[in-house]
Amino acid sequence: MKRVLVLTGGGDCPGLNAVIRAIVHRASQEKDWEVIGSIQAFDGVLKEPTEIMVLDEKAVQDIHALGGTIIGTTNKGGPFAWPIKNKDGSWGEVDRSDEMIRKLQYMGIDAVISIGGDGSQRISQALFEKGMNVIGVPKTIDNDLSSTDFTFGYQTAVQIATEAVDKLKTTAMSHNRVLVLEVMGRYAGWIALCAAIAGGADVCLIPEIPYDIDKVMEKIESRYHKDKGYALIVVAEGAKNINGELVTKKSDEVGYENLRLGGVASRLVADLKEAGCPYDMRETILGHLQRGGSPIAYDRILATQFGVKAMELVLEEDFGKMVAYRHPDIIAVPFTEAIAKYNFVEKDSALVQTGRGVGICFGD
Amino acid sequence: MKRVLVLTGGGDCPGLNAVIRAIVHRASQEKDWEVIGSIQAFDGVLKEPTEIMVLDEKAVQDIHALGGTIIGTTNKGGPFAWPIKNKDGSWGEVDRSDEMIRKLQYMGIDAVISIGGDGSQRISQALFEKGMNVIGVPKTIDNDLSSTDFTFGYQTAVQIATEAVDKLKTTAMSHNRVLVLEVMGRYAGWIALCAAIAGGADVCLIPEIPYDIDKVMEKIESRYHKDKGYALIVVAEGAKNINGELVTKKSDEVGYENLRLGGVASRLVADLKEAGCPYDMRETILGHLQRGGSPIAYDRILATQFGVKAMELVLEEDFGKMVAYRHPDIIAVPFTEAIAKYNFVEKDSALVQTGRGVGICFGD
Amino acid sequence: MKRVLVLTGGGDCPGLNAVIRAIVHRASQEKDWEVIGSIQAFDGVLKEPTEIMVLDEKAVQDIHALGGTIIGTTNKGGPFAWPIKNKDGSWGEVDRSDEMIRKLQYMGIDAVISIGGDGSQRISQALFEKGMNVIGVPKTIDNDLSSTDFTFGYQTAVQIATEAVDKLKTTAMSHNRVLVLEVMGRYAGWIALCAAIAGGADVCLIPEIPYDIDKVMEKIESRYHKDKGYALIVVAEGAKNINGELVTKKSDEVGYENLRLGGVASRLVADLKEAGCPYDMRETILGHLQRGGSPIAYDRILATQFGVKAMELVLEEDFGKMVAYRHPDIIAVPFTEAIAKYNFVEKDSALVQTGRGVGICFGD
Amino acid sequence: MKRVLVLTGGGDCPGLNAVIRAIVHRASQEKDWEVIGSIQAFDGVLKEPTEIMVLDEKAVQDIHALGGTIIGTTNKGGPFAWPIKNKDGSWGEVDRSDEMIRKLQYMGIDAVISIGGDGSQRISQALFEKGMNVIGVPKTIDNDLSSTDFTFGYQTAVQIATEAVDKLKTTAMSHNRVLVLEVMGRYAGWIALCAAIAGGADVCLIPEIPYDIDKVMEKIESRYHKDKGYALIVVAEGAKNINGELVTKKSDEVGYENLRLGGVASRLVADLKEAGCPYDMRETILGHLQRGGSPIAYDRILATQFGVKAMELVLEEDFGKMVAYRHPDIIAVPFTEAIAKYNFVEKDSALVQTGRGVGICFGD
Repeated sequence: MKRVLVLTGGGDCPGLNAVIRAIVHRASQEKDWEVIGSIQAFDGVLKEPTEIMVLDEKAVQDIHALGGTIIGTTNKGGPFAWPIKNKDGSWGEVDRSDEMIRKLQYMGIDAVISIGGDGSQRISQALFEKGMNVIGVPKTIDNDLSSTDFTFGYQTAVQIATEAVDKLKTTAMSHNRVLVLEVMGRYAGWIALCAAIAGGADVCLIPEIPYDIDKVMEKIESRYHKDKGYALIVVAEGAKNINGELVTKKSDEVGYENLRLGGVASRLVADLKEAGCPYDMRETILGHLQRGGSPIAYDRILATQFGVKAMELVLEEDFGKMVAYRHPDIIAVPFTEAIAKYNFVEKDSALVQTGRGVGICFGD
Repeated sequence: MKRVLVLTGGGDCPGLNAVIRAIVHRASQEKDWEVIGSIQAFDGVLKEPTEIMVLDEKAVQDIHALGGTIIGTTNKGGPFAWPIKNKDGSWGEVDRSDEMIRKLQYMGIDAVISIGGDGSQRISQALFEKGMNVIGVPKTIDNDLSSTDFTFGYQTAVQIATEAVDKLKTTAMSHNRVLVLEVMGRYAGWIALCAAIAGGADVCLIPEIPYDIDKVMEKIESRYHKDKGYALIVVAEGAKNINGELVTKKSDEVGYENLRLGGVASRLVADLKEAGCPYDMRETILGHLQRGGSPIAYDRILATQFGVKAMELVLEEDFGKMVAYRHPDIIAVPFTEAIAKYNFVEKDSALVQTGRGVGICFGD
Repeated sequence: MKRVLVLTGGGDCPGLNAVIRAIVHRASQEKDWEVIGSIQAFDGVLKEPTEIMVLDEKAVQDIHALGGTIIGTTNKGGPFAWPIKNKDGSWGEVDRSDEMIRKLQYMGIDAVISIGGDGSQRISQALFEKGMNVIGVPKTIDNDLSSTDFTFGYQTAVQIATEAVDKLKTTAMSHNRVLVLEVMGRYAGWIALCAAIAGGADVCLIPEIPYDIDKVMEKIESRYHKDKGYALIVVAEGAKNINGELVTKKSDEVGYENLRLGGVASRLVADLKEAGCPYDMRETILGHLQRGGSPIAYDRILATQFGVKAMELVLEEDFGKMVAYRHPDIIAVPFTEAIAKYNFVEKDSALVQTGRGVGICFGD
Repeated sequence: MKRVLVLTGGGDCPGLNAVIRAIVHRASQEKDWEVIGSIQAFDGVLKEPTEIMVLDEKAVQDIHALGGTIIGTTNKGGPFAWPIKNKDGSWGEVDRSDEMIRKLQYMGIDAVISIGGDGSQRISQALFEKGMNVIGVPKTIDNDLSSTDFTFGYQTAVQIATEAVDKLKTTAMSHNRVLVLEVMGRYAGWIALCAAIAGGADVCLIPEIPYDIDKVMEKIESRYHKDKGYALIVVAEGAKNINGELVTKKSDEVGYENLRLGGVASRLVADLKEAGCPYDMRETILGHLQRGGSPIAYDRILATQFGVKAMELVLEEDFGKMVAYRHPDIIAVPFTEAIAKYNFVEKDSALVQTGRGVGICFGD
């Protein structure tokens, strides 16, 4: 019996379970393969006692429609930078990668499929260089990876954010308010950009295009004067103004994010007040609602494609690669290439042009 | 031609448009009645120039499926307490009720249907006592009126809050976190209670049942020890602990709410940390998302029933009353009785017992 | 250890799982009670080998959000009329009730909670009269039981039907068509009535109000002439015209329904053509889509209330009763009374008056 | 003032309104352009009196979230094959293209944007060859055009079909049934294929892969024997068996489709019965529900991109082209090239391989 270990790392993302289910279904078509799930990413292997679960067809029945991941996930550092509490109570880290490889051998694992973001793929590459048979599956709800057309979870997040814009619009209209919606996107503004276009927002602020508060104010005024009587602003959590100011809170706590949720929205409202905005303003922070719930069909399909392809790469013993989507194909990209370049929104890209075409102000 | 003036006051609420549409459709069956909408509640009548719109069938086509209100609304004080800026820049108020009645006579208005909350109904009563032909339609998304079985908008808010619990659950599970969801409910905890039952939350904190943080902590621990590995808390914005502490921010700004959004959730997380909660905790504030979007069928129907009944009371000249739902009938209640008593969650009510029956901790 | 056996009978209905979960959670608060689920209603007990499953908290985790029933259901006849194949291949029935009672005793079952419709409650009563400790939980997606204000599943079906009307409306409008939507309701027209009001349909045809095709045609013409240019008709599957004609297909097959899906919609379109309808017409049959999917919050709550109450009646040994909702309480009604009277739509009820108030034509 | 005429032809499709809104918003950024909508495709121009509407920003406010098309559409033949009733009552056709061009000149139309399918694009090409300034926007909910990566409306249809599979699954499970869902796809099986993968169906039958009923039966049996106890089949309306049999009904009525809705599902159930299927089977026909309702974010964005690009081509006077999506760009393709090739599902394409990878049976 051959064994493939599957793990999910980083923040949860709609579609993770569909990847897991696809791996299991594909493996079940082979006589001699068994799928093992490691609980909470590398924790499942490194923690004592080992926390794993056998993943057969029954275990993954209908999970493709569920958000989250049935094998758990963690934002912690991984085997090369395992968090450890120092004697003085502060946190340090230690390299446990050799120990992990030994443990995997002891467990009879022939290959590992690591589903995770940026950080997870770097760990995968390092483990591959140490001799492990690793396949990567990209996971970034922010869609900020340039080696694949899209990543799963992203379209679900866009859909949820768009529905939020739809909902806020009726309140904005009824009360003649300026409503600010803060969505995910620390470095890449894709979700904000798409939700703004799909929801028909007036202003869209993203990390890639620093905003001038006066330009934003101008747009709001024109909205009110054109008798529309309200304005909708979608802002990515990593948006910054032309002075480069960003609402960041450096944190040295393990597993905590650096950006305060709602920080950008609050700041923007404060900035607008200072810039003389006379209208009633309210903010809404989507937060964790963007990650949860059932993935939309698009993401279930993409995730299923990734899962099947990952297992096929395992069967072909074509390791050291990450699966990727290049329409209409699913391909395999070497780790080195896979994580070489981020996918940021460019100022003159087709989508931004579309946004400008329907009158969205980007603050520039 | 006879004229009925319709206005919507207070915070927006799913179903307002369905009430308006029903009034117009019922009126259109009479030969000699015309419906006029006043923009932004009493503002439409009192502001110069008068802001009104004729509401015919075309104007209300398909609006029953839309959130918000097509005639706008406001949280301002109404004709008896019209906000006015004093010379020193502070805000005072002035009684403009007589002026309003004169204006309505001048406009040829025969009756007024006032759709609004608590405050609006009190104004309606006072105007009725001054001789105006007023019918009231209750609007409180919090469902805190005892003279009617239910109010429209409430079930939509419960549905939205429940879907939020569903979404947060997958993240809580995947990350082994304690997730806190703050929902509406300043004085009455109905939305929180229902969302907790419908979503399968572990803890539900409402204004009517002051919570003991140690009891909450105990429940969380039992959840983690029972191998569930996560906990979900639904908290109403007006929840307070057994010391009576509440996160309130008195505000003297016109039209601003007194409670800071997210105040309760933040405080609860802080309290739990202090009480020794060792788990990763995150908070989500539903905020304005609860008010927006298309009303669910239940609320569209109830709102339509209220609208038809209100217009029928106008036709029967049975003024000074508010429509109400007493299953399965729609009745008319005198204003004096209509707003006499609030509808709070009682500790030993059927719903709370149901909650306890499925293991929900109310912190008591 | 005491044992309560739970079973679900008749057509599936959103909320069944929420009842099951509530029973299990309530039972788990008692030291000495165990919940057993019988697979496929009474089949689980009567079939060899016995098909049952232990229902603990883990088994029912999060099932309240799922449609269907985790213990399966069947439309077959039950222990008093067990289907049996005669030698000539035809189907007969046999009374296996005594055998079932013996088997339950053998299995150490102290009480039975039977969740099911009309037929199931009659069986429950008969078993109770034979000495079994039975509690009933009503299940009828058609809401046609007079002893309870509402039954679970019904509001979800109304919501699904309303969303279908919303969807069909945009197509009707774009193509200037008459669209016919057939929904559930063989004897009671509640779902059609509510979906018509909530969706803003023009015509609503239900079993309780026989329709005159000329009245329907008149309404359609007035819709087209008023420049609306399209019409929406919601029809219950049991609707009949004033000649008493109904599309029924008697079937002697076990477990098959007597009404052909789509029969009423097709007939109506044919009738309209014959009556001279010059417009393009299309029909849509909701069918099984109405039963499936996640129950809305309203139904999850009602189902949870029923489940907790049912288990409490077991604990109080107050048998021979069915739980029921009488706002705002959950009560227990003796079986004899519980199933004595159906709940039909009355021609002059508040809801029908509301429908007429917004211009809906009932064909009378 | 320059004028661009916009029209929508063929079956309605989620996203049409988003295209229209985008054209209007983009045009409103130019000083001297006006957008005119032709009602019911070419009918609006050819019928007397001319039926057009001026499309300004107010007219298109928030329509991107609505299904259907605010300017109406028709399935009729277009100016080159205008339907005409012969003296004997039968239908013939007549070429009114010259008349239409004269009328457009008379109306002062400088350019036409024609949003429509296959047929509409051919008409656009022919009109362009006759000297008209035409830009095409592709519309095919079936996604069967090879010159663009995707068309709008398609992902919404896939999402609706997937939600239907999700709903049917709980009923199938609860009753141990075989459920058949018929979805759109007369020539191309994309919707069925994607819904089957996203919904986790067991069998998927599409026009491109003729099915062997015995293979389907085999798969169903394996599902029942593996203790899953139910099966889900998604079938495209144009699916045919290996004998090439298809449920077609030739129709000579203007504007009627050739395939009977539900024909394939009924035939499949009959075929399965004949092949010895012992299980309870039920069919559901999605029909018009797939076309209606609010487009998902994905389609709103793609449609908005198409609209902005179409208007930009008008401004650049780059006529005779159809807009298309080639990730991540929006490009312009000459009409001749645009409609040269269909986009069918290939047996060995990535998506079909994914389907096989998760165990879906295609009947081959």
